[in-house]
Amino acid sequence: MKKFNAIITITLRKGILDVQGKTVEHALQATDFPMISQLRIGKYVELTVQAKDSDAAEAIVEKACSKLIANPIMEDYSIEILEPLWENS
Amino acid sequence: MKKFNAIITITLRKGILDVQGKTVEHALQATDFPMISQLRIGKYVELTVQAKDSDAAEAIVEKACSKLIANPIMEDYSIEILEPLWENS
Repeated sequence: MKKFNAIITITLRKGILDVQGKTVEHALQATDFPMISQLRIGKYVELTVQAKDSDAAEAIVEKACSKLIANPIMEDYSIEILEPLWENS
Repeated sequence: MKKFNAIITITLRKGILDVQGKTVEHALQATDFPMISQLRIGKYVELTVQAKDSDAAEAIVEKACSKLIANPIMEDYSIEILEPLWENS
């Protein structure tokens, strides 16, 4: 089995109001940053997964995202599997 | 002036306890995902910035991060400036 690092980025679906993002955007525009707009805030998840290969790792992370990490009704997510860390025979 | 999309990833500094991440990790391990570990949750921010070039855009976003978007005492952040969207002469 190998260990893989995975990175998941989770964003709110288009059309869903991002209250936190709007608040930060307004705070920026009201101070020194009128040139910043369309700010949206999502989540960035790093994890380690033990699997036999990169495809298996991606399948596990995909299942974990749809079941628990993300909310597929309101959020989109993308998964990136990085190179294996080390081999544990 | 051009408009640039920027992506900021914000992670808690090493050594700072990530309570939200630990909670999700334990929930995963208690269900069908004992192979997932070292889960940490950060923020993923997308925004649009108007600037004369990509270096100026990065400088603006860097300042916005250190002043308002991130908390430099507890968080690390990285900024990626994407290709300009269109030119507004």
